[in-house]
Amino acid sequence: MGEIVFVGLGLHDEMGISLRGLKELETADSVFMELYTSLMPEFSVKNFQKISGKKLHMILRQELEEESGETVLKAAETGKAVLLVPGDPLIATTHVALRIHAEKLGVRTRIVHGASILSAVIGLSGLHNYKFGKSVTIPLASGVSSETPYEVIAQNRRLGLHTLCLLDIDVTENRYLKIREGLKLLLQIEEKRKENIVTMDTLVVGVARAGSNNPQVKASFLRDLLRCDFGGPPHSIIFPGKLHFMEAEALIAFADAPENLREASE
Amino acid sequence: MGEIVFVGLGLHDEMGISLRGLKELETADSVFMELYTSLMPEFSVKNFQKISGKKLHMILRQELEEESGETVLKAAETGKAVLLVPGDPLIATTHVALRIHAEKLGVRTRIVHGASILSAVIGLSGLHNYKFGKSVTIPLASGVSSETPYEVIAQNRRLGLHTLCLLDIDVTENRYLKIREGLKLLLQIEEKRKENIVTMDTLVVGVARAGSNNPQVKASFLRDLLRCDFGGPPHSIIFPGKLHFMEAEALIAFADAPENLREASE
Repeated sequence: MGEIVFVGLGLHDEMGISLRGLKELETADSVFMELYTSLMPEFSVKNFQKISGKKLHMILRQELEEESGETVLKAAETGKAVLLVPGDPLIATTHVALRIHAEKLGVRTRIVHGASILSAVIGLSGLHNYKFGKSVTIPLASGVSSETPYEVIAQNRRLGLHTLCLLDIDVTENRYLKIREGLKLLLQIEEKRKENIVTMDTLVVGVARAGSNNPQVKASFLRDLLRCDFGGPPHSIIFPGKLHFMEAEALIAFADAPENLREASE
Repeated sequence: MGEIVFVGLGLHDEMGISLRGLKELETADSVFMELYTSLMPEFSVKNFQKISGKKLHMILRQELEEESGETVLKAAETGKAVLLVPGDPLIATTHVALRIHAEKLGVRTRIVHGASILSAVIGLSGLHNYKFGKSVTIPLASGVSSETPYEVIAQNRRLGLHTLCLLDIDVTENRYLKIREGLKLLLQIEEKRKENIVTMDTLVVGVARAGSNNPQVKASFLRDLLRCDFGGPPHSIIFPGKLHFMEAEALIAFADAPENLREASE
């Protein structure tokens, strides 16, 4: 019986993989890759094959989700299969499902970690890690918008905590939610709920292209961010809770936040 | 004016750095490194110098915190200074302070992300990312223990959320908190507060050596984990909130949790 090694690709392009990940590839009998759980806009399969010296078999969403990763499991029956995954592996539940399935079949599994959007946006904003409450994904709107993101922001705000909002993507349809669109969806829910959680005067931090050579981080009031062009994906949004004075300083220094943020911090 | 590039070393040893991080080193005029914000037990400075072809200047805690990183800032005045940091940079507040200071002086700063313990333990446990509440560090006991970790676990539990407890380290004194010690500190607080938050029957997940070749993940009731030998550092603890049935399956498959966990999930 062989094994599956989940290797994290880190962020944005083919340079995000760790040396340990690259070393695992050397002894792999087959290498699979999925690029639908997170956007890696500048990932070049060709360059990666050159760097790793391995041929990549691309895995579609359907193969991993509906067919329970049969292709990968089959390769792992007799040899070492590596599954390359954007970010840090097993944050997406679809990989967890595959891993559970593999372990039940007696296939050994291991993880090689990679940089994740979860910690990257914290570092880029300069906000304190231990002040983030639960995070949430704003889904691509299809009919009525889910009110969950609004409720999560509200709950965290009541506790003085920050909220990280990841923005949904659909790689198959080549769609991704932009910061402006995410904010508008939340404003629509505000209009209905009227709890004063997401208004034009709410402080928001937009983060674009974390892990690339040109990430963009901008903190301001929602009305300003609606006018801000964040360029290419991926995008995410932070709704800060109560600010420590050092967090206010960080937002001013790293994210061009209004100087009067200082007075609102504690 | 030069620049400071904060480069994440990822987890555990010298193989955690990304290809992008390694590439940044090629053009660095000076390379600094700190190893006190997180434990990297198997990091070999010698091997890293061989891999990167650069001489490393080790930075002590005092230099970075009390002298505001003068050495690094000075090097960045005229050239490109790289500061190597365990995990994902700027999660530790001490680096945020240095970055604010640098930006105020007009020194450009950039970040190259690395794998972080924050996402690694989520992936290793198989628990769902969006069900984690705020995280907390259990400090090395000095006299009376802080009750904050207990309160954070209680607050998250009320909301049905998981709590990640990082365990404090003191590199200068070569001390680190073990899972067993962390649990005992929490039991002491339970004895005082009696809120039924951390008892012998509480479900706990212990994670040791995330990112290494032999990570250990064990889920069970607190009484069992007290007897469990987790080996070398670093250690961390997760207190699960309400479990989704797939999370229960993951803990059974990856963390050897008791089979009857299934009935407690929803």
